[in-house]
Amino acid sequence: MEDTKTNITPFSFELVAQDGSARAGILHTPHGDIHTPIFMPVGTQATVKALTPAQLQELEVQILLSNTYHLYLRPGPDVVADMGGLHKFMDWPKPILTDSGGFQVFSMGTLRAIDEEGVTFKSHIDGSTHRFTPEFSISIQEKLGADIIMAFDECPDPQDKEYNMRAMERTHRWAERCLKAKTRADQALFGIVQGGIFPDLRRQSAEFLASLDFPGYGIGGLSVGESKADMLATIEVVTALLPENKPRYLMGVGTPYDLVESIYRGVDMFDCVLPTRLARHHAAQTLQGRMNLANAAYIRDEHPIDPLCTCYTCTHFSRAYLRHLVSTKEILGATLLSIHNIHTLLELSQRIRESIINHKYSELRQELLRNLEQ
Amino acid sequence: MEDTKTNITPFSFELVAQDGSARAGILHTPHGDIHTPIFMPVGTQATVKALTPAQLQELEVQILLSNTYHLYLRPGPDVVADMGGLHKFMDWPKPILTDSGGFQVFSMGTLRAIDEEGVTFKSHIDGSTHRFTPEFSISIQEKLGADIIMAFDECPDPQDKEYNMRAMERTHRWAERCLKAKTRADQALFGIVQGGIFPDLRRQSAEFLASLDFPGYGIGGLSVGESKADMLATIEVVTALLPENKPRYLMGVGTPYDLVESIYRGVDMFDCVLPTRLARHHAAQTLQGRMNLANAAYIRDEHPIDPLCTCYTCTHFSRAYLRHLVSTKEILGATLLSIHNIHTLLELSQRIRESIINHKYSELRQELLRNLEQ
Repeated sequence: MEDTKTNITPFSFELVAQDGSARAGILHTPHGDIHTPIFMPVGTQATVKALTPAQLQELEVQILLSNTYHLYLRPGPDVVADMGGLHKFMDWPKPILTDSGGFQVFSMGTLRAIDEEGVTFKSHIDGSTHRFTPEFSISIQEKLGADIIMAFDECPDPQDKEYNMRAMERTHRWAERCLKAKTRADQALFGIVQGGIFPDLRRQSAEFLASLDFPGYGIGGLSVGESKADMLATIEVVTALLPENKPRYLMGVGTPYDLVESIYRGVDMFDCVLPTRLARHHAAQTLQGRMNLANAAYIRDEHPIDPLCTCYTCTHFSRAYLRHLVSTKEILGATLLSIHNIHTLLELSQRIRESIINHKYSELRQELLRNLEQ
Repeated sequence: MEDTKTNITPFSFELVAQDGSARAGILHTPHGDIHTPIFMPVGTQATVKALTPAQLQELEVQILLSNTYHLYLRPGPDVVADMGGLHKFMDWPKPILTDSGGFQVFSMGTLRAIDEEGVTFKSHIDGSTHRFTPEFSISIQEKLGADIIMAFDECPDPQDKEYNMRAMERTHRWAERCLKAKTRADQALFGIVQGGIFPDLRRQSAEFLASLDFPGYGIGGLSVGESKADMLATIEVVTALLPENKPRYLMGVGTPYDLVESIYRGVDMFDCVLPTRLARHHAAQTLQGRMNLANAAYIRDEHPIDPLCTCYTCTHFSRAYLRHLVSTKEILGATLLSIHNIHTLLELSQRIRESIINHKYSELRQELLRNLEQ
């Protein structure tokens, strides 16, 4: 913890409060502090779709995620590095996290081939062949220059135990290679716990990665088809074994329900494309469920999406106007719904954080769960 | 002029300065003052594509245009009226101008039929049949509730003199019908001068409409295929005959060159979809010409579009980032280029206004014309 203010270790995680397994913390980074638990909007291609960085600042977004696979293909890591790194390139002065590209290339099915050294895959843009290794993923992420970078892991089908064991073991070997490959002191490399929905594998993975003393940990391979019960049980197994003084990041998860239940089980960070993807498909997220703004019922509805919401969209526009925008396929519809959906998750994170600090999260959780859709 | 502050005539045009034929003025409206000469961005479907009203306010947009034809079809004038009118519906507290729908329905070619009473046409959305008359256009525009509404005119091919004469005469009869149909005191109805590129017809039209004492005048039927020389000569004929104490609005015109040359000839107001349409097609407008941001030459170009421009886009983003956004078809590309392109025309209007007030517009015009593309 004493190293917080030095240049050598600019990262540290302060645990501000605990309430049961739920935690409120502060993650210090070279581009500012992140108050956890926190939701990270996704800027896949160095932009959160349909929003300006100024709008993200107004939303009080604390940290963005961007995707190594996409930025590797376009514009390429050397371009980003030559333009001063990702923060400068996309005009985002606050913290950024990049994933390793692993999830994207493993999601390609027959378009990729895995071996012990790495993964060969075809670009979704032009079919050209590429190869990622743990070392190459780290080198791309170092060129991009995010504050938090992720180890290159193998993301298996969560149901196949045999495959999960092999993938987990490879993920561990790759985690060690990522640690060795890393050269920048101003980036924190997070290890990723794998092991599917198998408690014994997850335990093994959490313990092994904890022994490598990463400054933070991703929980990978969840929200990929398993049941909610399996997801939550797996989170419990993992967070119980991860070091208390390191942030835990549940990768690719982000409905309001998932946030509430995962934070309750000790998760600190989340990312998900859902709020912005739903927005481009006419849906508003609220703590009372989803609302499809294309619905003709809203044609003369002068209420905002959520009368209690304080976001720009809800304080300025009616459901009737939003229905008009999405019906006419106007870009502004995606922008306004993205603002609302991101605000909803940030506001929820903030409310939960305060309740943890006040040791009232159990009550808030019960209250939230009465309305939330799983 | 004494009526300015009363509820009965909330519109008046103050001529602040004249420099040759160029004019600087203030048009008072119920939703605020408009400093002319001014460019009006177009919000076709009650939204300026890819921009929030907050971004338009930040750009210091003074007045927006919206399209009666489009709003008639979706969401319908009764919906807009029930939602409190266009200003409230789209959250735009400043002045709005609506066109009459005439230009859109006359542009439909074989999909419309004209008679003395009005025009029957088919919707571009679902092919359903509709009919606009002067009275109906005014009634739609009264439901929408813009500050400035336009007379329903016939927009002919600018080259056919015989047709232009008949269309002009009908436009005059329709102008009288629009005046009679109008009921709201908080809207100013502008007449529209037609007559193609024929000086005698334009003279006749300007004189006739001037005699009807509209609070402002549109100049229609230009920038539809005629030469720049014909366009500018026509503007000169018309502005010489229109009353000095009424604003003149050149409809659908809006390149930087057109602004410079039309203001020089006495025009006060402009609208054009060009800045936002170009933005969605990767092009930036500058006073040194257009720049196609998809160009590979910009891949590592860390300069802004225009190093002297003070817009949000130019003060925060490189050409390299914009090239990346347009190459990857990201919505943010359209947003950032729209901001720049609108800023360029507003800034140009403002510079010209100041030079008119300082009686230096001839010099500024010469300086601007050295770089501007026709």
